[in-house]
Amino acid sequence: MIEQIQLEPSSGVPLYRQLFARLKEMILSGQLRPGERLPASRELAGRLGLNRTTITAAYELLQAEGLIRGHVGRGSYVATGPAMPGIPWDKILPSWESAPAPPQPTSAGLISFATSRPAEQLFPLEDVRRTAEEVLGSPHARTILQLGSPAGYGPLREYLADEARQRGVLREKDDVLVTSGCQQALDLLQRVLVRPGDAVILEDPVYPGLKTLFQRAGARVMGVSVGADGVDLEELALLLERHRPRLVVVTPDFQNPTGATLPAAARQSLLRMVRAAGAVLVENDIYRELRYEGAPQPSLKQLDDSGDTVLVGSFSKIAFPGLRVGWVIAPRPLLLRLTEAKQACDLHTDQLSQALLLRFAESGRLEAHRQRVRQAGAERLRTLLASLEKHFPKGTVYSRPAGGMNVWVRLPGGLDAAGLLTRAQRHGVSYLPGRYFEVTRQHTGALRLSFAGLAPEEIRRGVEILGRLVGEELRQARGHERYEPAPALV
Amino acid sequence: MIEQIQLEPSSGVPLYRQLFARLKEMILSGQLRPGERLPASRELAGRLGLNRTTITAAYELLQAEGLIRGHVGRGSYVATGPAMPGIPWDKILPSWESAPAPPQPTSAGLISFATSRPAEQLFPLEDVRRTAEEVLGSPHARTILQLGSPAGYGPLREYLADEARQRGVLREKDDVLVTSGCQQALDLLQRVLVRPGDAVILEDPVYPGLKTLFQRAGARVMGVSVGADGVDLEELALLLERHRPRLVVVTPDFQNPTGATLPAAARQSLLRMVRAAGAVLVENDIYRELRYEGAPQPSLKQLDDSGDTVLVGSFSKIAFPGLRVGWVIAPRPLLLRLTEAKQACDLHTDQLSQALLLRFAESGRLEAHRQRVRQAGAERLRTLLASLEKHFPKGTVYSRPAGGMNVWVRLPGGLDAAGLLTRAQRHGVSYLPGRYFEVTRQHTGALRLSFAGLAPEEIRRGVEILGRLVGEELRQARGHERYEPAPALV
Repeated sequence: MIEQIQLEPSSGVPLYRQLFARLKEMILSGQLRPGERLPASRELAGRLGLNRTTITAAYELLQAEGLIRGHVGRGSYVATGPAMPGIPWDKILPSWESAPAPPQPTSAGLISFATSRPAEQLFPLEDVRRTAEEVLGSPHARTILQLGSPAGYGPLREYLADEARQRGVLREKDDVLVTSGCQQALDLLQRVLVRPGDAVILEDPVYPGLKTLFQRAGARVMGVSVGADGVDLEELALLLERHRPRLVVVTPDFQNPTGATLPAAARQSLLRMVRAAGAVLVENDIYRELRYEGAPQPSLKQLDDSGDTVLVGSFSKIAFPGLRVGWVIAPRPLLLRLTEAKQACDLHTDQLSQALLLRFAESGRLEAHRQRVRQAGAERLRTLLASLEKHFPKGTVYSRPAGGMNVWVRLPGGLDAAGLLTRAQRHGVSYLPGRYFEVTRQHTGALRLSFAGLAPEEIRRGVEILGRLVGEELRQARGHERYEPAPALV
Repeated sequence: MIEQIQLEPSSGVPLYRQLFARLKEMILSGQLRPGERLPASRELAGRLGLNRTTITAAYELLQAEGLIRGHVGRGSYVATGPAMPGIPWDKILPSWESAPAPPQPTSAGLISFATSRPAEQLFPLEDVRRTAEEVLGSPHARTILQLGSPAGYGPLREYLADEARQRGVLREKDDVLVTSGCQQALDLLQRVLVRPGDAVILEDPVYPGLKTLFQRAGARVMGVSVGADGVDLEELALLLERHRPRLVVVTPDFQNPTGATLPAAARQSLLRMVRAAGAVLVENDIYRELRYEGAPQPSLKQLDDSGDTVLVGSFSKIAFPGLRVGWVIAPRPLLLRLTEAKQACDLHTDQLSQALLLRFAESGRLEAHRQRVRQAGAERLRTLLASLEKHFPKGTVYSRPAGGMNVWVRLPGGLDAAGLLTRAQRHGVSYLPGRYFEVTRQHTGALRLSFAGLAPEEIRRGVEILGRLVGEELRQARGHERYEPAPALV
């Protein structure tokens, strides 16, 4: 085999390097086996019609790389392969900061305020079963199981477009893309619109999945404070002027984690500011339907004269988060690129869930479910606020959302919410401490209570336990303050 | 309102610029409305305790930006807003090349060889319905509809891990991540492992979704030729040496589009070469189960001593592509990062489809379906090859796969497969021309025939039509050749 090697004298690459490369290839590809003897240099030189020094030079290089071993008087042998070299994963994997993992449930009876998700006890299983039967019994069943379109299941897209048109959030120049949940809608926007180094403005505190997404993409992520009335517009104006962001993402209704809602007048102002700064405004609309009191506010997309606001939504909060179906409504040029990105990401969204949610909606079952969810949510929120009032020590400040799934609590006396969590979990209660939601500012003294998934009785018990622990910590901290012996004055 | 503006004399920013910035903010945020009159400079100077020139300088800046208009003798007014400025999408959207769109079906009766997907006529709807009933009737129904884990639905992950362990493709150091189809598995690998400028080696020709994915990520995508026996190892050795790629993606069984299978010995060599070059080897395993003849070959992952090969698979080719469920099997450090990336992409894979496919598999229905699919596939492939033999002109070269869904046809006489497509569609037949699959080389004379979705009778008719058209084009081309009058010699 070696005898058939042909080199190219006119290639400009020295012959000994050519020979070395060919032999190396034969060894690595297994054509020359470990332990196999190479011809003596003199012999090979003769057979290939080369100078003997060419052969020895090539052999030396092979030996230097550990590919052959020479034994004086016995010739050269292909090295018995070192075990196939592994990949040094540590070296090649990205060094991004891992997102903080949610606290591990420590016991089965844990009352967990840690996840912003609906109550599975409210899922209307019988309705879901009937819906699945109807979908899989329909003449479309084969189409649904077959490969679909990146833009989404046609009938669902039409349904979503009609609904959005009626609400005034889809205009002539807009279209709908179905995504694998709202998270993917945001990820696709990142892919298409954000380049490394671009500034992105998020609410602070914010849902961690949003921050992680843009940080990993290499964006400069900036936080704008969220107060009781949503984002701080003065601060936003400053950030817009200073950083010329590519993207601003805002949750105007029942923001996660604060629960805050942006007043109607502020929506107009925000829209003008962001647009004047040339940034793309993304409206995260997933909690809107979970309003428990007060009149609905116009969405940013509705108020936008230019029509260029991008709206993202999902079935996850009002129906079933296990079915990953969300959407983006945006001007067509953007939507086209998002659809291309979607195709590269995962071809298209799961069609069984798309068809199931469509049928669930069209049959009126979604609306019935939504009403039950809103009713339950309102009761749970009332219970939570009343319990906080009753059990938490004076000085605690918490938001009073008009809807959604989350209340933001600021502990008094400089208490650390992450420190408290360890104790709370020992006592059977869990939540997410403020640091999970930090963008630019620290939120060590704050925590998020997600109430939608818990029954009122659990909420009451959970808050009672938490309130007691906070009270104890507080007394201890103040005690320390009081009794801390003062150092001598020198 | 303007009267309450407070400036900071000690801030270092000139007062007129501070005033300008505050007024601009008030105009953009809508606090000052279009048409509203600003106080005269003298008046405002008095109220704010500033020099009058400070006010006029600020007003001049506002006027320069078109934010206010001055009328001599009547004072200054906030400019009636130009319509809210839109986003210049053309300027900010990425300029990536759009992936070629699949040919549009021109008529309902079209025989389409254009998509590599299973036959929906073979879907066992009754079995699927029963499976859905069982899943939604099980005690896990609520869990399935509820938010899940980024790593995948626990019971499905266990099932996949057990199966892979038995096949020898999951070892001690590996784990499984469930993805939204195989496409997402590949996309996540790109996200975690490939940085802009990194070299990536793909087969050439290759499935276009793979190429697009890496090109958009800014990778230098290189193609290695695929012949009847899979990738050309000599060429691969050269590319590895020259480009030090980060990633090499290979489909050892029934490659798309060529249908080629890599012989067992070549697998060993390929593995050693790629590993010696320090590249990560990704084995695309989606067609393996669709073997119609011959003995199964060991997978690269099985042969890999180091265990560092990454295997991606999916239910799409053996079951239902509309349900988006695939997986990655990889060493744990990599899998951890992939799971983090997965969470940022879409939280987790649809759980109804995960649970449904698990039950479909565990109930034995998947195996029964797989046998029917294999049987049908074998017959369809036989029919296709026989029809090609019978109807295509001499000089046509086509692959003879032992499984999968695709045959690669090279037309004789320099015919252009893309040009032929237009005619073919007019005659009721469609396919994908070679250029869809190009990486580094041109494949203008080639086309892919995807046969799995068509009934034997359709295959026969389709190939007969195509063969006739190719014959006609060929005669015409040769005729032109023969009768082309020679130009005068001068």
